[in-house]
Amino acid sequence: MTDKNFSGVLVPALTPFGADLSPDKDAFIKHCKWLMDQGADGLAVFGTTSEANSLGLTERMTLLDALVEAGIPARKLMPGTGACSIEDSLALTQHAVDLGCGGCLMLPPFYYKGVSDEGLFKAFATVIDRIGSDALKIYLYHIPPVAQVPISLSLISMLLKHYPKTVVGLKDSSGDWDNTKAVLTEFPGFETFAGSEVFLLDTLRNGGAGCITATGNANPAGIRKVFTNWQTDKADELQNRITLVRKTIQNYTLVPALKVLIADMRDEASWAIVRPPLVELSEDEAKNLLADLKEIDFSLNTDDQMATA
Amino acid sequence: MTDKNFSGVLVPALTPFGADLSPDKDAFIKHCKWLMDQGADGLAVFGTTSEANSLGLTERMTLLDALVEAGIPARKLMPGTGACSIEDSLALTQHAVDLGCGGCLMLPPFYYKGVSDEGLFKAFATVIDRIGSDALKIYLYHIPPVAQVPISLSLISMLLKHYPKTVVGLKDSSGDWDNTKAVLTEFPGFETFAGSEVFLLDTLRNGGAGCITATGNANPAGIRKVFTNWQTDKADELQNRITLVRKTIQNYTLVPALKVLIADMRDEASWAIVRPPLVELSEDEAKNLLADLKEIDFSLNTDDQMATA
Repeated sequence: MTDKNFSGVLVPALTPFGADLSPDKDAFIKHCKWLMDQGADGLAVFGTTSEANSLGLTERMTLLDALVEAGIPARKLMPGTGACSIEDSLALTQHAVDLGCGGCLMLPPFYYKGVSDEGLFKAFATVIDRIGSDALKIYLYHIPPVAQVPISLSLISMLLKHYPKTVVGLKDSSGDWDNTKAVLTEFPGFETFAGSEVFLLDTLRNGGAGCITATGNANPAGIRKVFTNWQTDKADELQNRITLVRKTIQNYTLVPALKVLIADMRDEASWAIVRPPLVELSEDEAKNLLADLKEIDFSLNTDDQMATA
Repeated sequence: MTDKNFSGVLVPALTPFGADLSPDKDAFIKHCKWLMDQGADGLAVFGTTSEANSLGLTERMTLLDALVEAGIPARKLMPGTGACSIEDSLALTQHAVDLGCGGCLMLPPFYYKGVSDEGLFKAFATVIDRIGSDALKIYLYHIPPVAQVPISLSLISMLLKHYPKTVVGLKDSSGDWDNTKAVLTEFPGFETFAGSEVFLLDTLRNGGAGCITATGNANPAGIRKVFTNWQTDKADELQNRITLVRKTIQNYTLVPALKVLIADMRDEASWAIVRPPLVELSEDEAKNLLADLKEIDFSLNTDDQMATA
């Protein structure tokens, strides 16, 4: 185990597209800078929320280059670099290491289902061995509802035993607190991030590093406030507030819902565009989402957000 | 609907690797030629059995080029070209069309789960529209046990309505005969292939085109014999035989088991290598598999195979 590379609130930044579905680089940079200005401790770009697996390798690498060129410190970036094939995963991971990224968030190879921990270990090990760099810091990405291929406790054990300086943390997007708790208990010092801010306070109280959460795209300052106040007597109240916001948003399909919120905040309709196979919210859904958030006095406008949090 | 592009027995050719896990091009060409010599009606290269999603795009395109350069007619090839991202799928599909491949076997984008038919339709439609070529013939790849994203009957309907000359068939690897039967019933003239030879005779008797089957790598001639004799009184006996062979092999993990059989036939140990996250059969499993096949008098040696079929 090494000193913590990341802690706090990381945001898997949304990826904006133009009408032709190509990534909108300028809007992406602007959004990422806004997130950092709101207090995000890092950006887990190219995760599930970022529609990363709906992007090609070159698109991902070009966008990552653009963020660094735009002045976002590479050490604050934790790009998703796990892919179905070792070749793709190697290309993405090497690129991230070369740029100086603080870490890589790695999905397991997710095409084959029911594969063994031995096979998953070999997939990660092959990438780690071929990169062969102390600069590589891997965060395992456990998201069984989507990937359908889990990162089990025994797989974490195997990887920690062989690569204690490289495999440094995990994002738990299982939605299963019992699993997060088990990781926190079995692997103290491992940088464990909840995959939703709903579990942020519980994660911190059990020694975790923070959260990496989709809704961080809409409520970065509110979520960060829980992190900065988690040892104060305001913590539970602040947690209840961000949980309410999260649950209100996730009544809708999360990625298109978050894009509607950014489109509304910036008054830029194109922000609502998603890549297939995702689909945009209907006009009615979008209206209802905005009304639901108004109902609970939540706005993406920072001042409102801070006032109500 | 167009005239049938493919019918009979197509084989999703295994992809051999060297000790460093790189594809063994020469062994691949040799195996593909052997399959065609055994009577395969076509090669559905780069499917699930081919470990295609464990390959990078360049690796897949290089291997496809090599087959055509080696003299396998492109019109006999139905490469897998479906990917999670439209960008990757476009690159693979354009390459296959440019080479003159007879068809493309397309997985749906398989990262996001629980997506709508509308979203899947848009993903296929975007690729079809951007390729914009009458030469593109798409076979939909329905393999819910692995992809976890199904090709529903309503999605087939939507695609057939909009792209009747492009979306020409389907491989049903659901393992669910009721689904295959429903496709055959609802879409007569659609080139429907069973994903396992276990359903070959039933598929043909219900108007289907044939099968595209992993075990075709080991038993191509036996399976083809069912196709050539399906309207004779030998059909059921021949079907029972290939079903027995299939069931014997699939008691083991299918891809590594098939690679063990080719390694044994050619006396080339490297043929047993698989890419992570798959793992090779253990020594005991490999021995047992070979013993089990001996028990039922099956050998990959063609003469034996024909004699026992």
